[in-house]
Amino acid sequence: MKTLSLHTDLYEINMAYSYFKDNLHHKKAVFEIYYRTNPFENGYAVFAGLERMIEYLDSFKFDEDDINYLRTLDYDEDFLEYLANLKFTGNIKSCIEGEICFANEPLVIVEAELVQAQLIETALLNIVNFHTLIATKASRIKHLVPANTLLEFGARRAQEMDAALWGARATYISGFHATSLVEAGRRFNIPLAGTHAHSFVQVYQDEEEAFRKYAKHHKDCTFLVDTYNTLESGIPAAIKVAKEFDPEKNVFSAIRIDSGDLAYQSKEARKMLDAAGFKDTKIVVSNDLDEDTIASLILEQAKIDSYGIGTKLITAYNQPALGGVYKLVAIEENNELVPVIKISENTSKITNPGLKNVYRIINKKDNKAEGDYMANYDEVIDESKPLRMYNETTPLEYKEFDNYYIQNIHQDIYLNGKLVYDKPDIETIRSYHMKALSLLWDEHKRYKFPAKYYVNYSEKLFNIKHDLIKKYQK
Amino acid sequence: MKTLSLHTDLYEINMAYSYFKDNLHHKKAVFEIYYRTNPFENGYAVFAGLERMIEYLDSFKFDEDDINYLRTLDYDEDFLEYLANLKFTGNIKSCIEGEICFANEPLVIVEAELVQAQLIETALLNIVNFHTLIATKASRIKHLVPANTLLEFGARRAQEMDAALWGARATYISGFHATSLVEAGRRFNIPLAGTHAHSFVQVYQDEEEAFRKYAKHHKDCTFLVDTYNTLESGIPAAIKVAKEFDPEKNVFSAIRIDSGDLAYQSKEARKMLDAAGFKDTKIVVSNDLDEDTIASLILEQAKIDSYGIGTKLITAYNQPALGGVYKLVAIEENNELVPVIKISENTSKITNPGLKNVYRIINKKDNKAEGDYMANYDEVIDESKPLRMYNETTPLEYKEFDNYYIQNIHQDIYLNGKLVYDKPDIETIRSYHMKALSLLWDEHKRYKFPAKYYVNYSEKLFNIKHDLIKKYQK
Repeated sequence: MKTLSLHTDLYEINMAYSYFKDNLHHKKAVFEIYYRTNPFENGYAVFAGLERMIEYLDSFKFDEDDINYLRTLDYDEDFLEYLANLKFTGNIKSCIEGEICFANEPLVIVEAELVQAQLIETALLNIVNFHTLIATKASRIKHLVPANTLLEFGARRAQEMDAALWGARATYISGFHATSLVEAGRRFNIPLAGTHAHSFVQVYQDEEEAFRKYAKHHKDCTFLVDTYNTLESGIPAAIKVAKEFDPEKNVFSAIRIDSGDLAYQSKEARKMLDAAGFKDTKIVVSNDLDEDTIASLILEQAKIDSYGIGTKLITAYNQPALGGVYKLVAIEENNELVPVIKISENTSKITNPGLKNVYRIINKKDNKAEGDYMANYDEVIDESKPLRMYNETTPLEYKEFDNYYIQNIHQDIYLNGKLVYDKPDIETIRSYHMKALSLLWDEHKRYKFPAKYYVNYSEKLFNIKHDLIKKYQK
Repeated sequence: MKTLSLHTDLYEINMAYSYFKDNLHHKKAVFEIYYRTNPFENGYAVFAGLERMIEYLDSFKFDEDDINYLRTLDYDEDFLEYLANLKFTGNIKSCIEGEICFANEPLVIVEAELVQAQLIETALLNIVNFHTLIATKASRIKHLVPANTLLEFGARRAQEMDAALWGARATYISGFHATSLVEAGRRFNIPLAGTHAHSFVQVYQDEEEAFRKYAKHHKDCTFLVDTYNTLESGIPAAIKVAKEFDPEKNVFSAIRIDSGDLAYQSKEARKMLDAAGFKDTKIVVSNDLDEDTIASLILEQAKIDSYGIGTKLITAYNQPALGGVYKLVAIEENNELVPVIKISENTSKITNPGLKNVYRIINKKDNKAEGDYMANYDEVIDESKPLRMYNETTPLEYKEFDNYYIQNIHQDIYLNGKLVYDKPDIETIRSYHMKALSLLWDEHKRYKFPAKYYVNYSEKLFNIKHDLIKKYQK
């Protein structure tokens, strides 16, 4: 199998080369992955990508083909030999999949030798950015229609094959029920959904005949009723054919409407199905759906049981990139990890220095999360005492909590290069997500204008940051 | 190696099952891939994805693992045995990569047994939709700054790994000069670009020291000058370090500015570099660039030699899906291919029936393309006679050409399942694209409000379509 180790930006290798030549390659460094704004103006994001990160890291090595290619780029042989023997030997802490996360807090923390930490940057960002984006988009939709069946139909519009495959998985984590992509079903043990296309009706050139043939060979059929005219020919044909079959066989599971005015047609369809005695037959709709069109369908009291969602989910159409970054926050000097900062004219782009822990502060009374508390790695929190947290700009503004307990949002994934995390199955991840989401107040889950969730600093971390800023402002 | 054959939607397999059980699986069908609107309101699109399609089709088979998984979905054994022995034996015509294409004309035409044609739908759309989208986005950017160096920097923001890899290739086809993604360089023989990150400066905690160390071990350095303050510390440090080196070694190839006001900073940077005697040192900029920000930089007369473009290119940020579809246009009846149609209330969604040829009509006087002419497959065009083409809605409107020659926009790729197309190398594809683009009038290439390019019908095709519409309107 081909390694994924060259799935990295050239500058990572150029920096590795400098560090190696400068004998800095064993220096420890801490990088963290975070993003600056919740996607889709949502109140939170859903972390995903850990399983894929592990797949990548477990296979991280430069094989002979990799080295031979790098040789063509004119690196010295001593460096190539070093790379040929390189393994990942660092520590990684990460949110687990399905975890709720927020802007500006570390999602993944890499503590490793400088070269190793740098070489894995591109792939880790590539993975976390996409998986987290799609899981978050799916979560927004799930929040609007928690009682409906949600089907992921995006493969044909996904941005190449990996996106179709891993995107389907991300939507399942956030509560979707099935995907159309067979490979995702096989690979991740996700339920599959799908019936027939318009072409199937066109082949028989007659809706009745097409439905009849389909029902002959399948159970629980969903008939696609909009090839010619949904209300005038599609639904009547579906009803007529369904009546030809033994009611015990229950062939007529659903109709699917894939074009036209879904609100109007679904309401008319419901009446027609009910009048014909098919009260249990479901209505599935699709056609460029996203959370905005679904919200509008709800407001119009459309009669919809199930949504098939493709393009706008699998590409995160209205914001197709999370914008996650991988920033150096600490570097080893004299055997200690020293916090470092990157300054910017834009305050939101100033990094948060230091190796950190992030704690979710949960109100014991309501069992609801009140905020996330970022502390330096060596701080110990005494849950019996009030906890004060500072916002990023001024020590004058703070919030104080008591009667709380805390949860570290990260788990150890790798220790000294060894995987120490038991990969859960997909159902466990999916359940964990529901549990994590239940800690949030509803106000943070609103799909438009959510209440702001606070991710703030310990006093120590606040001071570390502000001292470093002052140092560079001089 | 794992097959890609399960990279398909479940409904394709369900339809295949019906066709097999109904003994229709050997019936010939014609499907075509097309999209309905040029992406980004551009005047054209750049076709890409053929190499990946061939990779997919050449490996198309259901192996034992595939069959075992499908068995869990409750298909009969006779069908599974049929799939286990299935090969692609059909014909495919396609635009070649780099070709200029337009809305509503077939980009890929699949003529194959019904089951085969249906099973490959999902993957073909997944591929063509993404590759064509990114090649088109890159072409828009290239058109604005044809004389500048264009670098693809998107891997970390791409929608998973395949998108990073194949996306980089698509941008190169459209005239980009290099990518940061090492794997793309190796796999496709594309030039690489990249120097160092902000973290590199942070590691040394001093820009001068970082640049000095970098220059010691690399040639033609690009120093990233915005870690702390571009004009006050970054550029002065770069200049100071560059002067320490032998001018013959030419270490100081470029600076890169990745934040802040790129127009202002680039102009100031140019003055500073020139004043210090580094007139040949280039200025590279990056930071969420796309064709709109680049147009604005041009209007401000920014002094920029090279653009590094990431997120907004690799995700096609402002329109992350092409929306290409795969529609049945003809079906075998009594050994003849009979055109079929899909009706829709929305006229733009009515399909164009029939197996077609599409000809680019090129004006001999100017050697410019005047329009694309869609004809039924059996029509012969006599280039010595005037050619009349009809728009899709009324026979009252037509255009007529003389003094023209024609080019079929498709080539034979597979004949009876055999690859008959010699895959060109990437440089040949890239050159072909430039040549194909040169046939377009500039008015169709404007990045905003391009003149409409006509893709119209032969009289015969117009009549086939309108006769079928009338049949279903009855």
